[in-house]
Amino acid sequence: MNRNIYLKTTPLEKSKEIFFSHLKDFFKDKKTETIAVREALGRITAEPIYARLSSPAFHSCAMDGIMVRAKDTKMAREHEPLILKDNQFIPCDTGDPLISPYDAVLMAEELSEAEAGVKIYKSIHPWENVRPLGEDIIEQDLLFPQSHELKSVDLSVILAAGIQNISVYKKPAIAIIPTGDEIVSGDEALNIGEIIESNTAMFKAMALESGAECKIFPIIPDQLQQLVEIVKQATQDFDVVTIVAGSSAGREDFTVEVAKELGQVFVHGIAIRPGKPAVLAKINEKPFIGLPGYPVSGHIVFNEIIRPILLKKGHRTVEPNPVLQAKLTRPAVSSLQHQEYIRVKVGKINDTYTATPMDRGAGASMSLAQSDGYLIIPQESEGNNRGEEVTVRLHRPFKHNQLANRIVVIGSHDMVLDVINNLFAQAGKNSSLISSHVGSLAGLQSLQAGECHVAPSHLLGKDGRYNNEAMSLFFKGERMAAINIVGRRQGIILPKGNPTKIDKLEDLPGKSMTNRQRGAGTRVLFDYLITQKGFKPTDFIGYEREVTTHLAVALAVKNGDSDFGIGVESAANKLNCDFVYLADEAYEFITYEKNLELPAIQELIRLLKSDLFRNQIKVLGGYETSGSGNVRIYNA
Amino acid sequence: MNRNIYLKTTPLEKSKEIFFSHLKDFFKDKKTETIAVREALGRITAEPIYARLSSPAFHSCAMDGIMVRAKDTKMAREHEPLILKDNQFIPCDTGDPLISPYDAVLMAEELSEAEAGVKIYKSIHPWENVRPLGEDIIEQDLLFPQSHELKSVDLSVILAAGIQNISVYKKPAIAIIPTGDEIVSGDEALNIGEIIESNTAMFKAMALESGAECKIFPIIPDQLQQLVEIVKQATQDFDVVTIVAGSSAGREDFTVEVAKELGQVFVHGIAIRPGKPAVLAKINEKPFIGLPGYPVSGHIVFNEIIRPILLKKGHRTVEPNPVLQAKLTRPAVSSLQHQEYIRVKVGKINDTYTATPMDRGAGASMSLAQSDGYLIIPQESEGNNRGEEVTVRLHRPFKHNQLANRIVVIGSHDMVLDVINNLFAQAGKNSSLISSHVGSLAGLQSLQAGECHVAPSHLLGKDGRYNNEAMSLFFKGERMAAINIVGRRQGIILPKGNPTKIDKLEDLPGKSMTNRQRGAGTRVLFDYLITQKGFKPTDFIGYEREVTTHLAVALAVKNGDSDFGIGVESAANKLNCDFVYLADEAYEFITYEKNLELPAIQELIRLLKSDLFRNQIKVLGGYETSGSGNVRIYNA
Repeated sequence: MNRNIYLKTTPLEKSKEIFFSHLKDFFKDKKTETIAVREALGRITAEPIYARLSSPAFHSCAMDGIMVRAKDTKMAREHEPLILKDNQFIPCDTGDPLISPYDAVLMAEELSEAEAGVKIYKSIHPWENVRPLGEDIIEQDLLFPQSHELKSVDLSVILAAGIQNISVYKKPAIAIIPTGDEIVSGDEALNIGEIIESNTAMFKAMALESGAECKIFPIIPDQLQQLVEIVKQATQDFDVVTIVAGSSAGREDFTVEVAKELGQVFVHGIAIRPGKPAVLAKINEKPFIGLPGYPVSGHIVFNEIIRPILLKKGHRTVEPNPVLQAKLTRPAVSSLQHQEYIRVKVGKINDTYTATPMDRGAGASMSLAQSDGYLIIPQESEGNNRGEEVTVRLHRPFKHNQLANRIVVIGSHDMVLDVINNLFAQAGKNSSLISSHVGSLAGLQSLQAGECHVAPSHLLGKDGRYNNEAMSLFFKGERMAAINIVGRRQGIILPKGNPTKIDKLEDLPGKSMTNRQRGAGTRVLFDYLITQKGFKPTDFIGYEREVTTHLAVALAVKNGDSDFGIGVESAANKLNCDFVYLADEAYEFITYEKNLELPAIQELIRLLKSDLFRNQIKVLGGYETSGSGNVRIYNA
Repeated sequence: MNRNIYLKTTPLEKSKEIFFSHLKDFFKDKKTETIAVREALGRITAEPIYARLSSPAFHSCAMDGIMVRAKDTKMAREHEPLILKDNQFIPCDTGDPLISPYDAVLMAEELSEAEAGVKIYKSIHPWENVRPLGEDIIEQDLLFPQSHELKSVDLSVILAAGIQNISVYKKPAIAIIPTGDEIVSGDEALNIGEIIESNTAMFKAMALESGAECKIFPIIPDQLQQLVEIVKQATQDFDVVTIVAGSSAGREDFTVEVAKELGQVFVHGIAIRPGKPAVLAKINEKPFIGLPGYPVSGHIVFNEIIRPILLKKGHRTVEPNPVLQAKLTRPAVSSLQHQEYIRVKVGKINDTYTATPMDRGAGASMSLAQSDGYLIIPQESEGNNRGEEVTVRLHRPFKHNQLANRIVVIGSHDMVLDVINNLFAQAGKNSSLISSHVGSLAGLQSLQAGECHVAPSHLLGKDGRYNNEAMSLFFKGERMAAINIVGRRQGIILPKGNPTKIDKLEDLPGKSMTNRQRGAGTRVLFDYLITQKGFKPTDFIGYEREVTTHLAVALAVKNGDSDFGIGVESAANKLNCDFVYLADEAYEFITYEKNLELPAIQELIRLLKSDLFRNQIKVLGGYETSGSGNVRIYNA
């Protein structure tokens, strides 16, 4: 097998230093173009702009009224008005040129008509209500220096100074070339093994946000010679060329080969995770970058390497991302071999910012989309403990009140949470839920640790009731509140048509299953039910195979990975699976009683009680909403 | 004279309340369109987006290597490698589908080739290095709720979930109609009285920044019937229609007439300044706004009224501008008749933010472009005193370190300051000067009050030396520093050809002049020189007519407003005026010695000493740069 095995990775800062040191001539080569001022919003001036004309270009009337000689008005008083004859004034509108020998303007509001003239009630000084020539702009004034980013008002200033076209730096142009035999455009139905090409949409958007122009090439199969031809041409036509995927050690990964054949490779493998399999090279004096194929890896390498190149080439400043200090809600471990990027969600509990680490898979684009930023663990660190204060590098600044209106939810998962979020958005409410699905038990631990506002929970106690025993366990002595979300029907999820003929709990032993994680209420329920019947975990094949949501259970069943799973009826409905009812349960938001006062929680309760909510839940099936929004106070 | 005299203005909040209450149906009417996901950056979802496909769509290999049965690897150890035969594995690349019965992937780095197979050095668990079906996205997952603004990564997520097109809210479309007989496009040479139409470029840019589409109409002359026809059609074709100018009380201001003929007028005249002459109306159920013709007035009314309409119609949240608390460096007075918007520049002196009020003219677009934000004085307040803490509403957030790198300059004006700023920008330095031109004396007062970093000054003392006497006066006991900027040639600025035959100071009495403001070093010099010769201020016609910069003096002379002015040779050169030399003078940055340690000041001194600076200054003429950048310490 012929592989590019990169045994040695280069630290990120070192990689950038090496790469940028070889791009000095590239950055020095300045490209400019002349464009219409009206099209220049956000562009960068390539030379200082000096006014061609003064503005106003003549002494002009600053008010609607009449132009007069100031000395003719000297004797006018409010109670002794003066009459100016028709040859002592000229009516004027704002902006009219002042005609010599008139040297002042009297406002229309301050005069009245009279026979053969106007009656005036006050005297004025020379140049009163006159905008003198050049008041705004004087010809030859420096309007804007070189390398200035043009704002909306700047365009008007330049036009007013008599300039219609200006020289700006050209936008850098980047070519993005997706590769891979398995990659398809997604326009047609997928065959097994095919992967939809989706990364380039993100990269293009990021390029545009960096002030660049971008062309996405058609998908190129894994054929070295074809890639070489295309890249060779692209480095003629574009400022920056990237190949997406093909930068790892796969058999068909030709990015390094292409770079070696056409230019120089400086770095193959950066000591970051995700993002390791990147290639930094130069072809035809242009930067050539091999981007990893996983979305998160690509996102990181684009941000760390390509974004600064595009900004610098476009003569823009590289603005650092905003950062925020937050308390870590779960441990974040990392290896000493690389700098690690962990996606986190940020919440604000009381006055403390919290950062909750998310899914780490480099392929998990959804968790990237849901994240607020990265916790970056340096190469020389092994990570951070739960409760430590860490620095989060935000993807973008938070909007006004965004965090204050955000209800942090950690605990049990249900699709109802999506419904709530969507209804908040539909209603134009500022409130939103951000939820992490760790199961009921871990959620209550988080609530106890001050890491969330509410913990959705459905823990069956030995008393046969939901959540009371758990509240007593975690919050002894506290006044707690349980907000009813919905009643749920739990049961056995089965492939459509029920091929293994499962009708009741007793049919399950000996069958294969996909289970929920430890601490999940659904797993607690399943364990409770099988114990009642005298079964043991080892009676079920795959009892140890865990997933974290109801939909994931249903998907595994639907895909034939296992004969059955345990979960809510709505998940079975959604993926068109069969369902055998086992039990009703209460699905509740557990919180401290005092949290009921928070405006966002009140908004949440109002929503749960609304008809809109009940109607949308009805569509999902398997839920009971008659008690939704009811609050139960519990002395734990 | 037929005028729309609006005696009563409506407070801003009341105006908005009235206007928006009449636009409820307009906002309710939701317009959507289906677009390609790849074109959807920044757009707002019109419905929740659920995944069509899972991603990955099959169990897939997470590494390049070989797929194996985990149980076949059980006995492999680092020092007791195991050989897997060719039928016990299949080579695989990242992303390949896992083929049953294989259930794990061994990394390429962890094996070596062997005869008829591969040698492996470790055992692995089932599902190790496998990305299970749906790991990233599960079909039917809620990807994004309704009313979600799509970010770069979101596009990739949606594509990966098998969706190519989505429903988004249509961008609201705004028509901007410039009017006025005196308004011209600026493509051709200006005639007297003509004004270049420049505002619509700013309004269009602001509309785009509010997520709207915008069409700028050709300039319409002041003809009521023509305007009525055009507006009638525009309210069919666009969501929002504005007329620029024509909203004041001028004879030819038809905006209100148009609105009355076609619809309903709610507000004519808002109690704000600038911005009073605005018209808020409804035609054909669409908002119709008359924008004032002055750029600053228009900027304020667009921001306060039109921007929130466009954002709300586009289903975006109205994000408040960032604010900053700052110390006011000059008094800001306002009348009780309106809410006043005063443009300010912000600086950071030691750890205090300062806000320096700028030019107030509604027509001064240049000062709007140079301002950082507005100080807004409510209608019920008469203003703020110098030194008071005020809230500044910033136009946009400051960039990283922007304020730390900003040298606040208050004092005497010279075009050399523009050269410095431009060279900073050219060199890609973060440093910049923001300067207010108040004259040398007022600049030293500001330095004393902690309102600026440096005060450019050229005050001739009785000792015949520059700035020492002034430093002793203001900074008794302090260690001061005077940084040499340039030596300047001051003299008499005359119209080209010297029509009044002025060759020396003695020729000036009886001639008309344009003077500099009180406290300006140039005025001090002129007073010193005429006193020496025994002349009095009353010997010069127009001695009391003041402007604040050398270029403004030259412009007044060039325009024939006066026979002469006093100023630097470079200003005469720039506007092609004649010049009679009178005196050399030292133009210096005065500062505290301790300020020399500031990185931005050090950058400034380096620049003043550079050849680049000297060469650019040489082009202007009239300067001596041999001492530029030299620092003189003075015990005041």
